[in-house]
Amino acid sequence: MSTTRIYTLTISCPDRAGIIAAVSGLIAQHGGFIVEASYYTEQEMQRFFMRQEIRADSLPFGLTEFNAHFTSLAKEFDMDWHISDSAQKKRLAILVSKQDHCLNDLLHRWRTGELNVDIACVISNHMDLSSFVEWHKIPYHYVDMSNKESAFDTISNLYNSYQADAMILARFMQIIPPSLCQRYPGKIINIHHSFLPSFVGAKPYHQAYQRGVKLIGATCHYVTNELDAGPIIEQDTVRIDHGDTVDDLVRYGRDIERAVLSRGLRYHVEDRVLVWGNKTIVFR
Amino acid sequence: MSTTRIYTLTISCPDRAGIIAAVSGLIAQHGGFIVEASYYTEQEMQRFFMRQEIRADSLPFGLTEFNAHFTSLAKEFDMDWHISDSAQKKRLAILVSKQDHCLNDLLHRWRTGELNVDIACVISNHMDLSSFVEWHKIPYHYVDMSNKESAFDTISNLYNSYQADAMILARFMQIIPPSLCQRYPGKIINIHHSFLPSFVGAKPYHQAYQRGVKLIGATCHYVTNELDAGPIIEQDTVRIDHGDTVDDLVRYGRDIERAVLSRGLRYHVEDRVLVWGNKTIVFR
Amino acid sequence: MSTTRIYTLTISCPDRAGIIAAVSGLIAQHGGFIVEASYYTEQEMQRFFMRQEIRADSLPFGLTEFNAHFTSLAKEFDMDWHISDSAQKKRLAILVSKQDHCLNDLLHRWRTGELNVDIACVISNHMDLSSFVEWHKIPYHYVDMSNKESAFDTISNLYNSYQADAMILARFMQIIPPSLCQRYPGKIINIHHSFLPSFVGAKPYHQAYQRGVKLIGATCHYVTNELDAGPIIEQDTVRIDHGDTVDDLVRYGRDIERAVLSRGLRYHVEDRVLVWGNKTIVFR
Amino acid sequence: MSTTRIYTLTISCPDRAGIIAAVSGLIAQHGGFIVEASYYTEQEMQRFFMRQEIRADSLPFGLTEFNAHFTSLAKEFDMDWHISDSAQKKRLAILVSKQDHCLNDLLHRWRTGELNVDIACVISNHMDLSSFVEWHKIPYHYVDMSNKESAFDTISNLYNSYQADAMILARFMQIIPPSLCQRYPGKIINIHHSFLPSFVGAKPYHQAYQRGVKLIGATCHYVTNELDAGPIIEQDTVRIDHGDTVDDLVRYGRDIERAVLSRGLRYHVEDRVLVWGNKTIVFR
Repeated sequence: MSTTRIYTLTISCPDRAGIIAAVSGLIAQHGGFIVEASYYTEQEMQRFFMRQEIRADSLPFGLTEFNAHFTSLAKEFDMDWHISDSAQKKRLAILVSKQDHCLNDLLHRWRTGELNVDIACVISNHMDLSSFVEWHKIPYHYVDMSNKESAFDTISNLYNSYQADAMILARFMQIIPPSLCQRYPGKIINIHHSFLPSFVGAKPYHQAYQRGVKLIGATCHYVTNELDAGPIIEQDTVRIDHGDTVDDLVRYGRDIERAVLSRGLRYHVEDRVLVWGNKTIVFR
Repeated sequence: MSTTRIYTLTISCPDRAGIIAAVSGLIAQHGGFIVEASYYTEQEMQRFFMRQEIRADSLPFGLTEFNAHFTSLAKEFDMDWHISDSAQKKRLAILVSKQDHCLNDLLHRWRTGELNVDIACVISNHMDLSSFVEWHKIPYHYVDMSNKESAFDTISNLYNSYQADAMILARFMQIIPPSLCQRYPGKIINIHHSFLPSFVGAKPYHQAYQRGVKLIGATCHYVTNELDAGPIIEQDTVRIDHGDTVDDLVRYGRDIERAVLSRGLRYHVEDRVLVWGNKTIVFR
Repeated sequence: MSTTRIYTLTISCPDRAGIIAAVSGLIAQHGGFIVEASYYTEQEMQRFFMRQEIRADSLPFGLTEFNAHFTSLAKEFDMDWHISDSAQKKRLAILVSKQDHCLNDLLHRWRTGELNVDIACVISNHMDLSSFVEWHKIPYHYVDMSNKESAFDTISNLYNSYQADAMILARFMQIIPPSLCQRYPGKIINIHHSFLPSFVGAKPYHQAYQRGVKLIGATCHYVTNELDAGPIIEQDTVRIDHGDTVDDLVRYGRDIERAVLSRGLRYHVEDRVLVWGNKTIVFR
Repeated sequence: MSTTRIYTLTISCPDRAGIIAAVSGLIAQHGGFIVEASYYTEQEMQRFFMRQEIRADSLPFGLTEFNAHFTSLAKEFDMDWHISDSAQKKRLAILVSKQDHCLNDLLHRWRTGELNVDIACVISNHMDLSSFVEWHKIPYHYVDMSNKESAFDTISNLYNSYQADAMILARFMQIIPPSLCQRYPGKIINIHHSFLPSFVGAKPYHQAYQRGVKLIGATCHYVTNELDAGPIIEQDTVRIDHGDTVDDLVRYGRDIERAVLSRGLRYHVEDRVLVWGNKTIVFR
């Protein structure tokens, strides 16, 4: 809920001496004021990652001119880089089925201003949640899943027409087809109701109950072609015991799913997540 | 560290009305004073489980006579049951390799009286920890693993000759052969350095690092024929992040392994664990 | 969300041998089927506490006749006791000010059936949340706090006229007067935004920030005459670090407040909480 | 357990644009390779804090020459700063009374190389732990507390003669006199057996039991003149319930005390803790 306008610069490049000096030198040279700075070097691949928040009003120019100044430095260090402006809110398309515990949580965080996003639309394969969404004055789109291919075409078209930046699967009980995963890499975020890699696929709470585990969990991850195997953004667990039925696990699960999704989504929205291979760097 | 002598009665039987009344009625009839009582009905199988602690000095007789009084009731309700006497400490054989974080923890809890057991002996495939164990005046047995079959015969013989009640694998880096698992069902307790069922087998921290999980865990379980698949007694997790190397995971892991093993072992020692199929009821 | 109708019997009495036998004997004699049973003996005062869930359809009579059968036994053991019927939902009056994170959470749990209660009304000293509450078709009452005495008379009258069973202070930023606390002992439940007894009173997150603690917490407790000093039902903590501002603490706090309140309230609603002096026994 | 030799540079100064650029520029100019870097700006006081790990072998000179190069920059930015060399292990004097759970834990971490320190000596007001300490070939000094003033003179002399860098109160049940606190600011580390600021002073577990809290905790902090009120380095909590006696709290407490002390001490030893007023910045 920061009211200061911020530019967030994220960089990934091969590690070597002098990167921090070069980047912070360039920013300092223009009077740029760094509010938050995080660095990490992955040792195996000798890959360097950084994230810096710069106060927008401390620079004498906007992002276009920043890009012009930064390009040659980025080339010199072979950087993958990105800069975003907190004044440009990310636009989310939220996909749900019948369960609304994650949706209810995200809408609350949005309407109180905790989550700094626009919610472009909610898309569902059921009508159950339309009234609640519409009370928020957010468009609700029902999509018939009887023909999966055309259904996902519709979803993709909605996503594009709303100019959404991320697709949030807030307990959307349908498997996203590979074509869609490939079209939006790093843009589709799912909440899976287990502590991955345990209990991939359907009915993870039933699987957990059968195995007799003493904790259950939830996992927020980017969606890739391989089911429940994409880069993990956030996870958490909660203690259960022998007395808990599958229904109890589902109930505990709702609490942990919404907590994990909302944290993971916040990291994503604030450009705190950098993906490298199948892993994430999360600068919390 | 209770100084009161306690009988601990554990029962498992098909569920029906009147079990608690029958058992507590029998105990009350002889003036028995119940200190702690726990019940659980598994709904799928309609199986009833209970655990009661009775003050030994409140009964006018000892365990032999108790057994005589209890047998017909147990038959009527088709009970699996067991009663133990806190004055008869369980005897542990502890198996270790080179790492001593679990051993160090268990010996500390034993020498301060927190863990109400006798430590019959420590058995190892290395000599590294002999001096530390012997400082405690506990016998240390080195077993050469070059011939696995004779090595495990030696271990089994040691276990029997010390009249041990449980075999604790406190980071013993050898797979227990099926013959031994079958000989001592519910008696061999392992600490596995992952949150099972994730990362079965060797090098779980490397597996966790590769997968990019955001929490790691440890699991205390009874050993069965199937590797890392026996009934789980206790588990826990700890948060890590992208900056943690495999060495860091191993370091965090040591803390959580010893915590989980010591809790699971205490539950076992105090007869708080009832096994049913591949699951445990733990009356904490 | 159990669909089975349940009677919940709670008892507190001086400890002695035979209580469990007497109670479970009486229930068994009428064919009563115990679904869940919990016991605890407080050692200092030698006080016994129990809670039993009995399947309503296993008894040949209703609560009136049960009471008749139970009265003499209760007298014999000098019991404080209570029995409730899951078919008679508890009725809540929820009090809020401007912040709605707890209210939003409670209404979600209510409308999905997770929380087995009726919400009689919402009462507030602000109009901000009226539209959201009314979407749920729940009466919303604004109370002007400029005259505190008449305001609390109004609140008390509303509570009585709705025949409410509990008053939930879901971030109601007004101190309840002693007269009201005394009129409804064990009926007023508050969520305090600190880990009590730390940071009593106003602005606990500012206090926590100033002290430099490394975890913050929340406390659900019964309201008594002494501010923030009533019997604690539930608490929890969450890790923070030096980088978190007061605004961040408030944000983390919202998550933990709603979690702690919803758990504490569930325990209360399911008659899992027995109060003894200034402490609670919570049979989870 | 890093085997790479590392210089750790910590800085605290008034915030302004260009600090990171200046510091990392100086290091880069000499080929210095930054392994880990952390920054934080305290907003109220506009104070900047940083910590950098530099690979020793990447610089063409040692610490003396580094200091010469760094002094003018430090003056320009009005820095409080410090640089340490991982090859120069910190020397600890550990103070204990009769309970050894923290001592046992610290000695284990030291003898396995996890804690990169020298343990100069152990000082105690009891003889109980001498044999265990001496098995580690660490000097053990008994100090008679009947005359407090001379006792603390002895302790101070021992600390000085061993050239210790930090004094660790690992459950030393004596209050450190103000004179000693003032002589070694930021050098005396205590583990307090409560979640401060709750339950200051004696018998915190009894206080927690009487209050009926649902979690207990431990706090690692620097010792100052005011009892249990110094800057907090690390804290944690653990769940308890109504069934736990004071003895149970003490037992849970031992686990959390040693965990919190060992984490806090590691942060201190690795120069991850910067003190500012009565708060700490901990760059984990």
